[in-house]
Amino acid sequence: MELEGTSIIGNGRGRRDGGESFRAANRMNGGDLPPDYVTASAGEIADAVRLAGEAAPEMARLSGRRRGELLRAIADVLEKNKAALVDRTPKETGYPEMRIHMEFARTVGQLRLFAEVAEEGSWVHARIDHGDPERKPLPKPDVRSMLRPLGPVVVFGASNFPLAISAVGNDTVAALAAGNPVVVKAHPAHPGTGEIIGLCVAEAVRSCGFPEGTFSLLFDAGIEVGQALALHPGIRAVGFTGSLGGGRALMDLAATRPDPIPVFAEMGSVNPMFLLPRALRERGAELARAFHGSLTAGTGQMCTNPGIVAAGDDPALGAFRDAVAALVRGTPAGVMLTEGIRASYERGTGRMRAWEGVEEVASGGDGGAFLFETRAERFVEDAGLHEEVFGPSTLLVLCGSAEELIRVAESMEGQLTASIHGTEEDLLENRGLVEALERRAGRLIINGFPTGVEVCHAMVHGGPYPATSDGRSTSIGTLSIERFVRRVAFQDMPDGLLPPELQEANPLGIVRIVDGKWGVRNG
Amino acid sequence: MELEGTSIIGNGRGRRDGGESFRAANRMNGGDLPPDYVTASAGEIADAVRLAGEAAPEMARLSGRRRGELLRAIADVLEKNKAALVDRTPKETGYPEMRIHMEFARTVGQLRLFAEVAEEGSWVHARIDHGDPERKPLPKPDVRSMLRPLGPVVVFGASNFPLAISAVGNDTVAALAAGNPVVVKAHPAHPGTGEIIGLCVAEAVRSCGFPEGTFSLLFDAGIEVGQALALHPGIRAVGFTGSLGGGRALMDLAATRPDPIPVFAEMGSVNPMFLLPRALRERGAELARAFHGSLTAGTGQMCTNPGIVAAGDDPALGAFRDAVAALVRGTPAGVMLTEGIRASYERGTGRMRAWEGVEEVASGGDGGAFLFETRAERFVEDAGLHEEVFGPSTLLVLCGSAEELIRVAESMEGQLTASIHGTEEDLLENRGLVEALERRAGRLIINGFPTGVEVCHAMVHGGPYPATSDGRSTSIGTLSIERFVRRVAFQDMPDGLLPPELQEANPLGIVRIVDGKWGVRNG
Repeated sequence: MELEGTSIIGNGRGRRDGGESFRAANRMNGGDLPPDYVTASAGEIADAVRLAGEAAPEMARLSGRRRGELLRAIADVLEKNKAALVDRTPKETGYPEMRIHMEFARTVGQLRLFAEVAEEGSWVHARIDHGDPERKPLPKPDVRSMLRPLGPVVVFGASNFPLAISAVGNDTVAALAAGNPVVVKAHPAHPGTGEIIGLCVAEAVRSCGFPEGTFSLLFDAGIEVGQALALHPGIRAVGFTGSLGGGRALMDLAATRPDPIPVFAEMGSVNPMFLLPRALRERGAELARAFHGSLTAGTGQMCTNPGIVAAGDDPALGAFRDAVAALVRGTPAGVMLTEGIRASYERGTGRMRAWEGVEEVASGGDGGAFLFETRAERFVEDAGLHEEVFGPSTLLVLCGSAEELIRVAESMEGQLTASIHGTEEDLLENRGLVEALERRAGRLIINGFPTGVEVCHAMVHGGPYPATSDGRSTSIGTLSIERFVRRVAFQDMPDGLLPPELQEANPLGIVRIVDGKWGVRNG
Repeated sequence: MELEGTSIIGNGRGRRDGGESFRAANRMNGGDLPPDYVTASAGEIADAVRLAGEAAPEMARLSGRRRGELLRAIADVLEKNKAALVDRTPKETGYPEMRIHMEFARTVGQLRLFAEVAEEGSWVHARIDHGDPERKPLPKPDVRSMLRPLGPVVVFGASNFPLAISAVGNDTVAALAAGNPVVVKAHPAHPGTGEIIGLCVAEAVRSCGFPEGTFSLLFDAGIEVGQALALHPGIRAVGFTGSLGGGRALMDLAATRPDPIPVFAEMGSVNPMFLLPRALRERGAELARAFHGSLTAGTGQMCTNPGIVAAGDDPALGAFRDAVAALVRGTPAGVMLTEGIRASYERGTGRMRAWEGVEEVASGGDGGAFLFETRAERFVEDAGLHEEVFGPSTLLVLCGSAEELIRVAESMEGQLTASIHGTEEDLLENRGLVEALERRAGRLIINGFPTGVEVCHAMVHGGPYPATSDGRSTSIGTLSIERFVRRVAFQDMPDGLLPPELQEANPLGIVRIVDGKWGVRNG
């Protein structure tokens, strides 16, 4: 596959002689990678959004079966071109090939899972309230409603998941499955990966006969293209995974629009983990090994990386701490996604080393993993210690009592995940902690680790601010299809003019709510 | 029932010697109504939110059956005190007694409908994905999720629905049904109505043994209390029905918070109505009568008041126009909700009378109903003509062709409703119009009128901005329960620690989605 370095705008390509150009760094050798990538011009942005706007009504008319067909076709074309990704993506990200294979499997799996959802069709949550013309004092109208696509969606590629959370990652797949056109702002750290994926999607769009504006992908050396997209009157929603600073800037920008639009920003968190006494005593060494694996997965660059571990300060914890410390000492610097992330990790760990009341327990040396330690009182009073250090650094918080574990939990902001390791007895004794964490997290994990988010139907990869811009939705799992829709009601509409999902005979055989009765498939 | 004029803060009352005080106007005679109402102090605001924060975890633990019990108890206490409302509310609003009876029925009906939803329990949309410890390369975790309450909600009473969209109106009922405490900012135009309702709710909260902070109601002569509530760190969401200016101000305020929160603002719209040729020819006179009824319902002060009527300029329209004009001429000034609304209506209709390219067809004289007319070209190019004139004023837009009807539709912003009157043949010939309106409205009505929103399960009283702050939810109907929740996932949680909705045996017998299969009640 030949890389050109220009934006993909519907069936066409952007100009080579446009704005500022940039190259991807080669994270494997410190060099860079051709070709030059050209920042999309204002005209190219306008073209991509115009095409998306033209595609939107047509896509809204296409059936779930047709949308499923598109998603499956994208997965097929990606599989044909997997070798190009396995060649390019490790260089652009520093990830080992094995990681790319796993993320590729998740990406095509996700496409096919959403295809199933679109094809099955019940996800539109159809509701029917039959009318009653004889009702007194007023006749009752017939009201039917379902979820309908929102319109053109902008998706920002994430640095840390070049396949599964980028050009054709979760938000793109959810938006397409729901019937929305997508304009991707490719992440500048892996533009080649973005171009390969973009060309695959464009090929599938053409081969399935979807409208040209179904998908575009724009390059940008900086943040201007993303800002212009978030402010563009033709855009109806934004999906973003990245830093708190970047996500908040997009939220603030969208809030200034004449017509504010929803921004779904996943901005990471410290994913606190709580270790209860019996679990520590019974399997401290095993916990230490598994914890270290979660801490260093993807060189610590997971949104769900466990950055805080809280536990009672007793001998069983000492064994856990010593085992983690030994493993951390054996974890030297890994290749990080970008030089910026590397520098930010060094600043963050440097700040922690100098923090009053924080002790460095162990480090892998020279930018490797870090284990820090502090006491609960210190942690509770100093919100600076709650901030994410993106990378394989973690802070052990020593608590003097079960109540102090709860105070630590209650001092924290919204989180993507919270984990508790405990026996059933531990958990029953610490119900207050379980409840405090449930109020702060999108996902509560018992005896497991936060990294490795399962792409399934019940998954919540969300959580109260600042984990996300709005904790009422998820970015991973099939429920994310509910981001890019709004409900439309049809009152007294003749049956033949209704979408099939709402027609009386239920031609698609979906599950509906009829006259307040849940789970009705017939009638 | 003795009215005191002080805020209701949990089980207590605010101070009499607090801030600025005000009285409700008596809309029936131009006088005012005792007692003096006292603006809540900063300390009273803090107390109400603190109590709500304390109540939140306890309410989150209470079952749907218990929440249903509370809603039914509120309805019962309201019924015991109906006479006090029938006495006070007409004076505070200028609405005739009959209107109060109807709105009262809607209000208690709404409470009992949400009680059914809370008791039945499937509304939490429980999802279960069973784990598979043998899966390769990684074991599959058990993931279960459901909707959980968001925490303390602020609800702003609306001027135009003192019962059904105010202190214990749609947003309050939805928030309570979902398990959230509510702090109401009572509308200053009908504080006595607010106090009566507030006392009823407080009595039901006590008799049902709900925590004290379940409900508070604060008075304010101005906007400061509302602003303080929207910015308070303890508040998790805002529900509002009112003007575009007021709603947008709340949206902007919430967006500046360190932790932005969702603002659900219903800000009204012009609810365009399209008349197609065969319907006009077949039943123009009947349409004129029914249209006039919708235009003047509640003295035109409905969020769904039809402010724009578009139709082809042909002889059948002439008959409709003449009939409406005659009815409008016979519609003198009615009592409006406040002097502010009356003045704003006079300004709005005064502006229309002076508008270039707009003709006054008929008026009821001296602040009564108005029928204006303009041509489609003028309407499409002048967005000022798309703005709501709150009251019984409507603008007829004359179109030269079916394409011009579509252009009129496409020139408009988001709407709560759009209505089309047409025979089946008309509708089939105008599919482009139907689709254009569907993209702009929360509810599409065929051969009906927008006023009189049915409180049911499929209702959408929402729509793209500026009809609402975020067209992805509804403020009326049982779906509004989904405003005040977020989904929480539990991973590998022992069955006994799961909420009953997610336990394997499904003890509540609710409908769930299990391993991607919809509508499963067993297992």
